[in-house]
Amino acid sequence: MLLLLAEAISALAFIEDVRCKFPAIRSPRHDCQRKMEDLSFIPDILSGPLDVYRNTASFNWKRLKLSLEGDLELLKLKYKIWHILERDPLFAHNQVTPSVEEQKRITQLQLKKINEYKFVTKEIFNSSYSKRTRAIMTINEAVQSLNPSVSVKMAIGIYLFSNALLSLGTERHHKFYEATILNREILASFALTEIAHGSDARLMRTTATYDATRREFVVHTPDFEAAKCWVGNLGRTCTHTLLFAQLIMPDGTNHGLHGFVVPIRDPDTLETYPGLVVGDMGEKIGVNGIDNGFIMFNQYRIPRENLLNRAADVTEEGQYVSSFSDPSKILGAALENLSAGRIGIMQESCHSLASAVSIAVRYAATRTQFGEQDNEIPLIEYDLHQWRLFGYVAAAVVFRIYIERFAQVYLNIVEKSHMGENVDNLSEAVSEIHAMVSCSKPLLTWTTMEAAQQCREACGGHGYLKSANLGDIRSNHEPTVTYEGDNNVLQQQAGNWLLRQYEAARGGANLDSPLNTVAFLRNHTTIAKISFTATNTAQLKTTQFIMSTYKWLICYLLKQTYEKYEALLAKGLTKFQAKNKSQVYRWRNLTKAYSEYLALMFTLESIEKKEETLQPVLKKLFTLYGLWSLDRHLVELYQGGYCVGEEPARLLREAVMELCGDLKSEVVSVVDALAPTDFVLNSVLAKSDGRLYQNLQKALVGHPGTFSRASWWRQVVPSAKL
Amino acid sequence: MLLLLAEAISALAFIEDVRCKFPAIRSPRHDCQRKMEDLSFIPDILSGPLDVYRNTASFNWKRLKLSLEGDLELLKLKYKIWHILERDPLFAHNQVTPSVEEQKRITQLQLKKINEYKFVTKEIFNSSYSKRTRAIMTINEAVQSLNPSVSVKMAIGIYLFSNALLSLGTERHHKFYEATILNREILASFALTEIAHGSDARLMRTTATYDATRREFVVHTPDFEAAKCWVGNLGRTCTHTLLFAQLIMPDGTNHGLHGFVVPIRDPDTLETYPGLVVGDMGEKIGVNGIDNGFIMFNQYRIPRENLLNRAADVTEEGQYVSSFSDPSKILGAALENLSAGRIGIMQESCHSLASAVSIAVRYAATRTQFGEQDNEIPLIEYDLHQWRLFGYVAAAVVFRIYIERFAQVYLNIVEKSHMGENVDNLSEAVSEIHAMVSCSKPLLTWTTMEAAQQCREACGGHGYLKSANLGDIRSNHEPTVTYEGDNNVLQQQAGNWLLRQYEAARGGANLDSPLNTVAFLRNHTTIAKISFTATNTAQLKTTQFIMSTYKWLICYLLKQTYEKYEALLAKGLTKFQAKNKSQVYRWRNLTKAYSEYLALMFTLESIEKKEETLQPVLKKLFTLYGLWSLDRHLVELYQGGYCVGEEPARLLREAVMELCGDLKSEVVSVVDALAPTDFVLNSVLAKSDGRLYQNLQKALVGHPGTFSRASWWRQVVPSAKL
Ligand SMILES: Cc1cc2nc3c(=O)[nH]c(=O)nc-3n(C[C@H](O)[C@H](O)[C@H](O)COP(=O)(O)OP(=O)(O)OC[C@H]3O[C@@H](n4cnc5c(N)ncnc54)[C@H](O)[C@@H]3O)c2cc1C
Ligand SMILES: Cc1cc2nc3c(=O)[nH]c(=O)nc-3n(C[C@H](O)[C@H](O)[C@H](O)COP(=O)(O)OP(=O)(O)OC[C@H]3O[C@@H](n4cnc5c(N)ncnc54)[C@H](O)[C@@H]3O)c2cc1C
Repeated sequence: MLLLLAEAISALAFIEDVRCKFPAIRSPRHDCQRKMEDLSFIPDILSGPLDVYRNTASFNWKRLKLSLEGDLELLKLKYKIWHILERDPLFAHNQVTPSVEEQKRITQLQLKKINEYKFVTKEIFNSSYSKRTRAIMTINEAVQSLNPSVSVKMAIGIYLFSNALLSLGTERHHKFYEATILNREILASFALTEIAHGSDARLMRTTATYDATRREFVVHTPDFEAAKCWVGNLGRTCTHTLLFAQLIMPDGTNHGLHGFVVPIRDPDTLETYPGLVVGDMGEKIGVNGIDNGFIMFNQYRIPRENLLNRAADVTEEGQYVSSFSDPSKILGAALENLSAGRIGIMQESCHSLASAVSIAVRYAATRTQFGEQDNEIPLIEYDLHQWRLFGYVAAAVVFRIYIERFAQVYLNIVEKSHMGENVDNLSEAVSEIHAMVSCSKPLLTWTTMEAAQQCREACGGHGYLKSANLGDIRSNHEPTVTYEGDNNVLQQQAGNWLLRQYEAARGGANLDSPLNTVAFLRNHTTIAKISFTATNTAQLKTTQFIMSTYKWLICYLLKQTYEKYEALLAKGLTKFQAKNKSQVYRWRNLTKAYSEYLALMFTLESIEKKEETLQPVLKKLFTLYGLWSLDRHLVELYQGGYCVGEEPARLLREAVMELCGDLKSEVVSVVDALAPTDFVLNSVLAKSDGRLYQNLQKALVGHPGTFSRASWWRQVVPSAKL
Repeated sequence: MLLLLAEAISALAFIEDVRCKFPAIRSPRHDCQRKMEDLSFIPDILSGPLDVYRNTASFNWKRLKLSLEGDLELLKLKYKIWHILERDPLFAHNQVTPSVEEQKRITQLQLKKINEYKFVTKEIFNSSYSKRTRAIMTINEAVQSLNPSVSVKMAIGIYLFSNALLSLGTERHHKFYEATILNREILASFALTEIAHGSDARLMRTTATYDATRREFVVHTPDFEAAKCWVGNLGRTCTHTLLFAQLIMPDGTNHGLHGFVVPIRDPDTLETYPGLVVGDMGEKIGVNGIDNGFIMFNQYRIPRENLLNRAADVTEEGQYVSSFSDPSKILGAALENLSAGRIGIMQESCHSLASAVSIAVRYAATRTQFGEQDNEIPLIEYDLHQWRLFGYVAAAVVFRIYIERFAQVYLNIVEKSHMGENVDNLSEAVSEIHAMVSCSKPLLTWTTMEAAQQCREACGGHGYLKSANLGDIRSNHEPTVTYEGDNNVLQQQAGNWLLRQYEAARGGANLDSPLNTVAFLRNHTTIAKISFTATNTAQLKTTQFIMSTYKWLICYLLKQTYEKYEALLAKGLTKFQAKNKSQVYRWRNLTKAYSEYLALMFTLESIEKKEETLQPVLKKLFTLYGLWSLDRHLVELYQGGYCVGEEPARLLREAVMELCGDLKSEVVSVVDALAPTDFVLNSVLAKSDGRLYQNLQKALVGHPGTFSRASWWRQVVPSAKL
């Protein structure tokens, strides 16, 4: 949906007008300063069956955990939250999924309780923008891992709304801001999607028509197809919504989508106001704690002041005026709206991915199958099993480092623009960041989906138990591939930007890449000439090989995509048609390769600054992720002539298998660093004590009613008789 | 689990002793006899928005439906069942998922009701083995599409058990057979898997020790790790179980796994008997209507006669005697146990796959997004969307034809051996069929998993509604990749057989392939020399290209796998180790390619006999499936030198896209032929009338409590205040 906001905002058309210079990206804090922080707040792990594979690790898992978190205070905050919630009965796990309605009730109560815990302290609240936001993101992640529904409700209901007020609204909306973020009197929702329009916001049909006589907007839904839908918090709980509707002037002129604050429910009674028909969407595949709703407006009136008027306003008399003042601020704000939600989704993905692989790896290390009596073989010893899982473990680490670093870079830019600092090349940076986010969100969310499935299968039948938690992880994660911009549609946006850069590089013009993610395109002709020359796997297991192969691949796919696109244009197709006809095998693969390259590039920079003891394992994980991902691009590597003959594929795949073998001794400790506490991970198959069957026994035996005769026995007896 | 049965039975060691000749496979009935059957029992489809894409089809969808079903009477039976159940309130769909316990209750009641409907008429019951079995399979499929839990309960509780009695038991077990299949006094379960042992049955630890003094077996579970678990029907309902336990003689000798009939519950009260601790497994990711259970036996006594003693018996005095009489009968029976369950799973997969693509394709044809107002573009027009979906549509058709034909061949063989006919090469045929099933079940179940996910995503946010039905299709289908033999383990078995054939071919020995599926291996050296020579896509869109490329691919992968395996053996690894180290990229890819080849080979033979009007569309679907699948093997095609340079991948992929484009005009009618009735399909997004938004409106508005204020509003008001 935010994709649509992106389009809505870019339709404001000022973005292209701002041209300034963008500073070199600040390098991240070194964390190799060797002073050993006190990590005793991280609970120790009980000795047990997993020791065999823990004792072989080359590093201390707590230090890796800190390093992956990137910030001691934030890690402490996370553990504090987990510790508190573990002791609160309201956050106890359910052995049996409660009814959909009950999930909504519990989730709303949890939301209220989290507010009461005041995890966002005054100190956090008053700290710098980037510090505050990172803390809020951490809280969000900590809560998400316990109940994804509650974190989504919080993100939409409080943060998305209040940020939107700041970025799209003006002083007159401050009262809403305070009521939301400070007094929590408002619980908001975000109403963009309509029944018949999702990815394409342009054609949405809800209208807000100005009535100059009463100085009000009249909001109206022409028919069911134009009902706003999927709106989180709307079904049962929100008091206000941030509505996107076509702004129509009294003379009928349509000025396009604008944002409005619209009251929905009386905060004291939760009764919806007359003029609204508000329904709950009913049961979904997952996140059933969220009350997604739909709404139809029947000539519903709101004050003129409720238009978010930072970019454009309607005067009392009914004059439409756009206000292009302070463009850099608006831009930064726009950027934030575009990307913050998606960065949040990527962080949540990292957590879901980490949880899934932690469960499967711990299971693999404690579950044996085949071999001899008294000497059965742990699954983790099988090449096939390593190959099925370790690539995802590597991805979990690489993504986490990537997003941590990327969020930093991003928040610094937004902060500067908030503070009115002159950010060089702001508009170019905004576009580049948008491209990066638009391809990275698909990469992270899809990889996590795949991983969740593979991990479930790797746990065999026991993985199919609800109490394994792999089913819920997947179902709750699943909508992230669709919301905040459908992945397939988002990738197209990243591709647009890449093609523009490629065109510039071909024409010898400057690249608009202040973050330097495609700086190498300047040398695209030289890069196109390199090819696979390695003669052993050692030569492949290098950052040099991985990064240069990716560069070649991106240049090749850009060329392929560009030529196809141009050829179609030459045939007389419109840009839109030509784009559609060059997605498959081209645009799609291109943006995928670019997103993997980004993850690798950012991770590499970070790893080099990590403490020494962690470097070997991090480099192995980096290398595995790189080669494992390149393996999936082998067709293009062959097609483009980078690889020729039998050797390249054989060596590349051999290198992947060698790395898997190498990582066997590390991987259990790696997941110790990735996993949350046992309570949060909530999987009967993967408690950190490694007592697989004792834990399973406790869960099965303790399941409510497990040993009782069915209460309905009389209805089915005589049993199944003909 | 049946995988394990396979191993258990093959441990009986008689299989290798039977050598006889196997007859050429009977060719299937031609259905191109042009006499037009009356298909008016298939309800017509209402005219509506889907007409645009229906009117362009080259064929009549009802005739395609008949052709895919393969049998008029069976198709009628299916519609009869659907018609009856649609009118029975017990089978009404739930808008909200009932509690897990309630699902079990409803499912058991449904099972009882299905028995009462007597869909298996006397006539069916008394017909030939293969006719009866096909009818039962059809009933199973018809019921599965409404509630997969009930069909699994029925399959395990009645058919698997009674078949096992016939094949593993003797006359003295006839009373159990009658009580199950005729009188329905027994509802059975199948207890093989233990907490700590699944794929590896050999090391299972439940014991049945013979007590000669009382002429009883004493069944005992040494500890929780040896508890039988996951046993369907055991949790709440079964009266008996078919138990696999280590048979121990009074002197302590262990004769390995044997089957026993063990009473579990009093049929009149559903109370479990003393000496048993029976629990329900609790909530699972899906199929929650099945009461999977676990059980621990505490020195539990059963009569000596309850040993299934066809292959071996224990005399009253405590003598272990194996009975190798009538080997061909036992073999045929073994075959049936091995494969019948998996063939059933494949048929169910076909149905789930067909349902998933039907939903996504109808949605794609009615949902528009982007374009101009009043001229928005249906999703089905996007190349990317076609590519995401049409390969799976083609798979749905190919798999259906493949399995229909394969089931025929299989049932004919079993029938002959049942009737004591001398079946040539029976033992070789058993092995070949086992190999075919062992790689086809993974192919079909995994493809269906992928398809369900892709279809959900292709329906965007609305696909995430429970009422879209894509979530339930996936969750219920999901355990099929694990049960009746974990897919990854199963593939290894197919690989074993393939390697044996390859070795024979290399050594110039005869192939043991009476079904001729690898006859081409005789020419493996010639085949290895062919390569990609096409210069345009037309040359690729031929059965010739597809089949010969597959032959090359299989030979190449066999060579790769064989050489790796031999090299590892030469290094001193055991067979088991060498096998494990040649799975990834080799064994796995090999068995995948072989399974696709099988599907194509069987389908091709069938298509050629279909009525003429259907041939063009069937050939297009065949071709798309072939090329779309080959696309995923391009790396090996390049690696092995079959493809060189830019052209092959470009042409192959261009051909795929052309076929997608071509199929746009057919695909809506194809899914009309694949889809069950609207009631059975049960998706708000895909009613055959194509009235997408009207149906969605009805569903959303009609959802219970959709417009009510939350009953728990007082608990959360004041709303979310800090
Ligand atoms: C759990 C959940 C919560 C949500 N919360 C909110 C919320 O709070 N507020 C809100 O406003 N919305 C919300 N949404 C809606 C969400 O933003 C939309 O689902 C999303 O924007 C995608 O739009 P759509 O569902 O209409 O899909 P569509 O745009 O209809 O797309 C359907 C399919 O068509 C494909 N497709 C579309 N266009 C093209 C093209 N040009 N080329 C190729 N393929 C194309 C897509 O890839 C997709 O697979 C939520 C959705 C879910 C599932
Ligand atoms: C819904 C459901 C219903 C069931 N119903 C029944 C029933 O009625 N009766 C019954 O007896 N059982 C039943 N089962 C159990 C089922 O048969 C087993 O789950 C199945 O046989 C797999 O065994 P496992 O779960 O022990 O997995 P494991 O054998 O422990 O395998 C776990 C993982 O390890 C991998 N693996 C194992 N061995 C190897 C190897 N050598 N090389 C590489 N990888 C390996 C597998 O691929 C898998 O991913 C049911 C299961 C489910 C989920």
